[in-house]
Amino acid sequence: METELLGYVAGILTTFAFLPQALRMIRTRQARDVSMTWAASMTAGVFLWFCYGMLKHSVPLISANIVTLLLLFVILFVKIRDRGNSGS
Amino acid sequence: METELLGYVAGILTTFAFLPQALRMIRTRQARDVSMTWAASMTAGVFLWFCYGMLKHSVPLISANIVTLLLLFVILFVKIRDRGNSGS
Repeated sequence: METELLGYVAGILTTFAFLPQALRMIRTRQARDVSMTWAASMTAGVFLWFCYGMLKHSVPLISANIVTLLLLFVILFVKIRDRGNSGS
Repeated sequence: METELLGYVAGILTTFAFLPQALRMIRTRQARDVSMTWAASMTAGVFLWFCYGMLKHSVPLISANIVTLLLLFVILFVKIRDRGNSGS
């Protein structure tokens, strides 16, 4: 049981590290300090960690990566829209 | 075997998403666009994922989080030294 608890705490720490970034982007509607490469690479990687967690039946991996994916989708959405507005 | 491969690809994507940030900080010796809260929270979380991987005997989790920890230590080192220099 301790192992799963360790996974949950790890998930909370790494997932909530994304929260300030996502909230700042929602508030400022700007995505300049995040590169598209970072956002795309992280989103793909987190999705694969989610699949890995499903295959390994690891609830900490599944839950942490679902929440992180949601935050990353927010970051990606603001990033893509910001790109559209600046015509770059 | 495919499950482990999935884990390795996930690890490569999420680990190398940190690389540009770490390289930019080494090159510019500046850490302003990274918050201490983010760096500390991510480092603690990645360390716990590493421990979780050890307990679950998951080589993808162990290897990905070791490399990410090294990159995060670089980011933390530049961040702490940058703070020392600016006397903040």
